[in-house]
Amino acid sequence: MYNKEEITNWFMSLQDNICNQLEKADGGKFIEDRWKREGGGGGRTRIIQGDVIEKGGVAFSAVHGKTPEKILKALQLSETDFYATGVSIVMHPLSPMVPIIHMNVRYFEMENGTSWFGGGIDLTPHYIDLSDAQYFHKELKKICDKHHPEYYTKFKAWADDYFYVRHRQETRGVGGIFFDRLSPSKEMSLEQLFHFVQDVGNAFSPIYTYLIHKNKNLPFEEREKEWQLVRRGRYVEFNLVWDKGTKFGLDTQGRTESILMSLPPQANWIYSHQPIEGSKEHTTQKYLRKGINWLDII
Amino acid sequence: MYNKEEITNWFMSLQDNICNQLEKADGGKFIEDRWKREGGGGGRTRIIQGDVIEKGGVAFSAVHGKTPEKILKALQLSETDFYATGVSIVMHPLSPMVPIIHMNVRYFEMENGTSWFGGGIDLTPHYIDLSDAQYFHKELKKICDKHHPEYYTKFKAWADDYFYVRHRQETRGVGGIFFDRLSPSKEMSLEQLFHFVQDVGNAFSPIYTYLIHKNKNLPFEEREKEWQLVRRGRYVEFNLVWDKGTKFGLDTQGRTESILMSLPPQANWIYSHQPIEGSKEHTTQKYLRKGINWLDII
Repeated sequence: MYNKEEITNWFMSLQDNICNQLEKADGGKFIEDRWKREGGGGGRTRIIQGDVIEKGGVAFSAVHGKTPEKILKALQLSETDFYATGVSIVMHPLSPMVPIIHMNVRYFEMENGTSWFGGGIDLTPHYIDLSDAQYFHKELKKICDKHHPEYYTKFKAWADDYFYVRHRQETRGVGGIFFDRLSPSKEMSLEQLFHFVQDVGNAFSPIYTYLIHKNKNLPFEEREKEWQLVRRGRYVEFNLVWDKGTKFGLDTQGRTESILMSLPPQANWIYSHQPIEGSKEHTTQKYLRKGINWLDII
Repeated sequence: MYNKEEITNWFMSLQDNICNQLEKADGGKFIEDRWKREGGGGGRTRIIQGDVIEKGGVAFSAVHGKTPEKILKALQLSETDFYATGVSIVMHPLSPMVPIIHMNVRYFEMENGTSWFGGGIDLTPHYIDLSDAQYFHKELKKICDKHHPEYYTKFKAWADDYFYVRHRQETRGVGGIFFDRLSPSKEMSLEQLFHFVQDVGNAFSPIYTYLIHKNKNLPFEEREKEWQLVRRGRYVEFNLVWDKGTKFGLDTQGRTESILMSLPPQANWIYSHQPIEGSKEHTTQKYLRKGINWLDII
């Protein structure tokens, strides 16, 4: 049986491993920013401004204290202490040919015995490469299938719904998997859930390393760069308007810099920007919708 | 007695006048984008990419139809039709020495007879110039004082609270005035309220023209430009995370491009950016707080 200390330690080692792997893939180095939370706990936010990654963060945190009102209300619980730990990643590459990636794994526990895992991983290419999207989803399906026959289908659909820029009626990217409130049950013990979450966490480095190496040397020009900056604007819009994690963090006086490390180094907004019919930008935009079966896209 | 048609017509003429004045001050030209709303009404969004203004919008809209659930709930009303009209402005200048400005005047009316005016005007300098901030607030006080002895004090404090980037614990800029739900009462008739709102609307062009001419030729370098892009990032954060108007528009499937015309052409995020103690950026940051008496600041 695992306890929160072991889960926390594993998340810390995951952060270490991922930073090591990303430094190898990128060539640059992370800098670390350690912080403490007034109400209890703290974290270590690691930031890279590298050769491939223009701005990226791998953040670990473990915080505890009085459960925020918002959660108590949502769960219809009275005052109780909480413990939350997790790893969050967002990478904004310099090249528009390399996709943005996001990963999060988290564990939440309350004094009253309630506990759950949550997390997800999703890919936001500036230009959708069908073989990359297929590869990404096949890798995620492999992980899911190891643990539960329905996980991929369920969590893929959940990601489509979650990573949705509603006011643009488009998905953030090609999706991935998203899951929340995975509590121990007869079907899946805490241990089994943790093994699933570990596999998700461990998948990050090989997947993104592959995507970096495959795409980092592709040529691009001013046009691709401009499109990247517009797509990054949509990324900002999603994170600040719709992302529940960001919203929750900012609402509950979380650590602003760690929450907003997900924002790109630069984003542009052009009034009523519309890619030309038939252009590769237009093709990408057409694929930004829910319910696409990426496994069979090619 | 005014009716909604006259108020609407006045708002349209305000848009025309402001666009004319801004074209004179800037040298550039607005382009117009007309749109219709599915549920009823529409608008004309005007965008400038000029010599002084890098990206700016002056939007007029007049929409009607079934009152959105959110408003009904907030007012504890059952189904009724609404009519809403207004003018919204945001200007993002090219030079970091020229302040960002925002203005909004709006009128809302429901079938059941409820009606109100709302609006405001606030200034967001990248670098706070005390004499500009004082001038701005003195002009606003003059307008307010013409109509009600308590308006300036009340609406200045309201702006401090409204234009507040809570997760940064800083104000968006030097504030201004903000007011909402100004319904006719014994003290102020609809006509009197409308005259106040007209004076607010009419103040925009002379104020911003003055600030443009005073600051547009000031020299700046890479450092000032970088700081501008960081401050614009905060502007994006406020608008997407805290601005109730933006939130309401996006939630109720408003016209995305008109709502988000408030976003800057470019914004940057630097992890944990902190201006050097004693620098002019640091001085500006120190002034980004509520409750400053700008009238007596010099």
